[in-house]
Amino acid sequence: MKKHLILRLHERDNVAVAVRDIAGGEMAAPGVNALRDIPQAHKIALKDIPEGGEVIRYGAVIGYALAPVRRGDWVHEAALRLPDPPALHDMPWGQAAPPLPRAPLRTFEGYPDAGGGYAGTRNLLGIHTTVQCVAGVVNMAAERIRRELLPRYPHVEGIAPLTHAFGCGVAIDAPGAAIPLRTLRHLVHHPNFGGEVMAVGLGCEPLHAGLLLDARDNTQGNVILLQQEAGFDAMVAAILRMAERKLERLNRRRRQVLPLSQLMIGLQCGGSDAFSGMTANPVAGYAADLLVEAGGTVLFSEVTEVRDAVHLIARRCVDEACRDRLAQEMRWYDDYLRGGQVDRSVNPSPGNREGGLSNIVEKTLGAIAKSGTAPIVQVLSPAERPTRRGMIFAATPASDFVCGPCQLASGITLQVFMTGRGTPYGLAAAPVIKVSSRTELKEQWGDLIDFDAGPAATGGSTIPRLGEALFRQIVDVASGRIRPAAERYGIHNDLCLFNPAPIT
Amino acid sequence: MKKHLILRLHERDNVAVAVRDIAGGEMAAPGVNALRDIPQAHKIALKDIPEGGEVIRYGAVIGYALAPVRRGDWVHEAALRLPDPPALHDMPWGQAAPPLPRAPLRTFEGYPDAGGGYAGTRNLLGIHTTVQCVAGVVNMAAERIRRELLPRYPHVEGIAPLTHAFGCGVAIDAPGAAIPLRTLRHLVHHPNFGGEVMAVGLGCEPLHAGLLLDARDNTQGNVILLQQEAGFDAMVAAILRMAERKLERLNRRRRQVLPLSQLMIGLQCGGSDAFSGMTANPVAGYAADLLVEAGGTVLFSEVTEVRDAVHLIARRCVDEACRDRLAQEMRWYDDYLRGGQVDRSVNPSPGNREGGLSNIVEKTLGAIAKSGTAPIVQVLSPAERPTRRGMIFAATPASDFVCGPCQLASGITLQVFMTGRGTPYGLAAAPVIKVSSRTELKEQWGDLIDFDAGPAATGGSTIPRLGEALFRQIVDVASGRIRPAAERYGIHNDLCLFNPAPIT
Repeated sequence: MKKHLILRLHERDNVAVAVRDIAGGEMAAPGVNALRDIPQAHKIALKDIPEGGEVIRYGAVIGYALAPVRRGDWVHEAALRLPDPPALHDMPWGQAAPPLPRAPLRTFEGYPDAGGGYAGTRNLLGIHTTVQCVAGVVNMAAERIRRELLPRYPHVEGIAPLTHAFGCGVAIDAPGAAIPLRTLRHLVHHPNFGGEVMAVGLGCEPLHAGLLLDARDNTQGNVILLQQEAGFDAMVAAILRMAERKLERLNRRRRQVLPLSQLMIGLQCGGSDAFSGMTANPVAGYAADLLVEAGGTVLFSEVTEVRDAVHLIARRCVDEACRDRLAQEMRWYDDYLRGGQVDRSVNPSPGNREGGLSNIVEKTLGAIAKSGTAPIVQVLSPAERPTRRGMIFAATPASDFVCGPCQLASGITLQVFMTGRGTPYGLAAAPVIKVSSRTELKEQWGDLIDFDAGPAATGGSTIPRLGEALFRQIVDVASGRIRPAAERYGIHNDLCLFNPAPIT
Repeated sequence: MKKHLILRLHERDNVAVAVRDIAGGEMAAPGVNALRDIPQAHKIALKDIPEGGEVIRYGAVIGYALAPVRRGDWVHEAALRLPDPPALHDMPWGQAAPPLPRAPLRTFEGYPDAGGGYAGTRNLLGIHTTVQCVAGVVNMAAERIRRELLPRYPHVEGIAPLTHAFGCGVAIDAPGAAIPLRTLRHLVHHPNFGGEVMAVGLGCEPLHAGLLLDARDNTQGNVILLQQEAGFDAMVAAILRMAERKLERLNRRRRQVLPLSQLMIGLQCGGSDAFSGMTANPVAGYAADLLVEAGGTVLFSEVTEVRDAVHLIARRCVDEACRDRLAQEMRWYDDYLRGGQVDRSVNPSPGNREGGLSNIVEKTLGAIAKSGTAPIVQVLSPAERPTRRGMIFAATPASDFVCGPCQLASGITLQVFMTGRGTPYGLAAAPVIKVSSRTELKEQWGDLIDFDAGPAATGGSTIPRLGEALFRQIVDVASGRIRPAAERYGIHNDLCLFNPAPIT
């Protein structure tokens, strides 16, 4: 199959992206000779652009030329002025959605939820904590549970000790504290924990067990308070005893064939490059469309990577309430950033920029490709749980390790993580499928990347074909037939909560 | 020795604290019969107090009576109105300090600093990280270093992998980000790491290795970037190889007899009760006075637990610059809390209140007892390094697990942690001596509490006697002759950074 040298995504585009390093003098496309070396993933001008002229990618203005640009020239971040962010009032909504592609599978094998909610994809012992003070003891006990108890319960697939930096020394009544509180409360009911509740607290923390747990769960059988134990050895012994009781019950869980409407997954990108928006994200978007068509639920997130294309997301909202909530979440974040004396230009990261992403507008247009084409049925505040099924915007920070816990709290049981530069990211409570935007990354990190979307750029495959393959991999991972790399190795990031409230 | 039933700290006090549970009808003191049950550590009125009258403890007003209080009655949090916080302008400074008690020891056995700075108390391999993304891989590699490499280097006492939630997805140019940046940068030079630098980064993060490390340290021999490695196995192998080179060099370090002027310790309290201010904190204050007298440096912290007694700290400042800096740090925190729509009343915690601390004023008067009586020579912003020796106020949050990393970054090599309710707190990079405020806690947590200050309340000992014993324990722990409980068990909290900047 013919390999492209550049990739142009929309007929209006006056720049295209180098599929590989292009040498000065090389013909990038008919009539477009590179005027200088263009690094892989960076942009080359397809036409002359006057000073102040629009630079167009994804069919949208990603910036204005600060100086005249000649055809064949490198269009890098320093050459562009950032456009203003889209206004948030009166955004049109309810645009008719194109028909979704038909999913080739309608079921997966998961752990059904007793209450009729979303099913689990793993059978895990979750160990919740009320406060960071207990983290040291819980981590030591967790190591012993893994080594001494887990081998005796073959149907339990792992443990997830949920230690965090919240719970004390925090302004727990501040408006911003509602987010970390909700995150921790919702994690207690995560489908992968099978309805078993096990929590470790200290005993004097503002976030006491009664705040973390529902009244029916806050029982002696579910809660250990370290201040009530007779020292360190007794604490560890108490945690092991409770873990064993929970493991006995969890060990009886079995997978069942379930409709995909019982699956909720999350999408996230991190360490993005200019290929992310052309390969990994649209491939994930196609897979998401298939999952939504089969009745499933998909969350996408990352407010600062939606803000500059919010009007495109608003159009897809199914009703006015959904559109209004979208605007409200964006406004909250605008204010939050302003409170810290920064704005949206703090994103992209230096790595994104080296990867060819010139500014937040370009990054955003590539980032929202992960949301596919389905109508957007709901917008959630960070860590809220959805009440509708389908494509949902869960408004979380873009930070990988903060978005992940927020999506987990919303109830995802699997995450698809698209990366261009590469990150060894993982979650303790749900499997993560890592998708590379370039084949070079898959070749370099063979034992960490689970799916390569690179062939979408080189002409080796197409977005629908790769999207369907990713959809099938999602179903296999959700069904426990495949364990992604991070899960196999046991790599996972810390549970970093989003806490906009002050530390005291 | 006679056991007291109540403890009154100052001749002006019109309330005293119950040393044990007092039953209604019992004679608490001559002429003071308990009108109802008074729980241990709670306050009993020694005189009738009219509505609106001053309630006095530590010789200071801790609140105003909301209703008339009768002699012998329980004075609990609901009976008190909070006074206004002291004004911050024109606070008197430079009050003459009483002579310090003479230290019985002048030296300890530490690891000298090549640059002439403070000495180390431990010989540790510090593994620094630029970003949370690498935490999963670093933690797995650390486990292998502990198991496979460390036993071959008997003079190295441990490793400290410094993973954290900063580095990406953060507004790194926001004014508030200066604090976590400074914290991480200063930790690189922590005396316990012996001048060896080992850092693991990802490769695309805003906090890149060049920002974390000084130019002379940012070398191939000191930095591993995961994006440059060929997958997971290669990453772990690279970390192990670098660790081995560093361990070889660290293994040559030896303790030497050094003057106590080369020792810098930190003081902190957590899970406080009403005894903390009468036993553990003044005992630590006495030990601190001895250490300062011997030329050492002592940091105390916790802005929200100094704010209400700031005028008492200001008086002890040695110069106007020091007093001004104190006021400036307090103003910063007032504004910070206001920005989150809360105020100082978010402290104390429910556990503090159950422990008899009615409000932040009472907690503060007890908290500052840990600073002893020495002149205050300097005031530091969070994670700043001192340039003077002696008693220093390091303005950090009061949150245990946030204060600890800030003090470590300031350079403490040992922490004394006073607790009333009990917490299994520990730090990876420096030993922590845990001091109980009540003997009951020492009896319950025999394997976690290192020093019992309880006898200061019951008449079993005195503050000077206990203070000298604690001073000797500090010297023994600093010299490696004693390993406190948390160190023996390997319990430590996460490196929770203070980051007032937004997440993006």
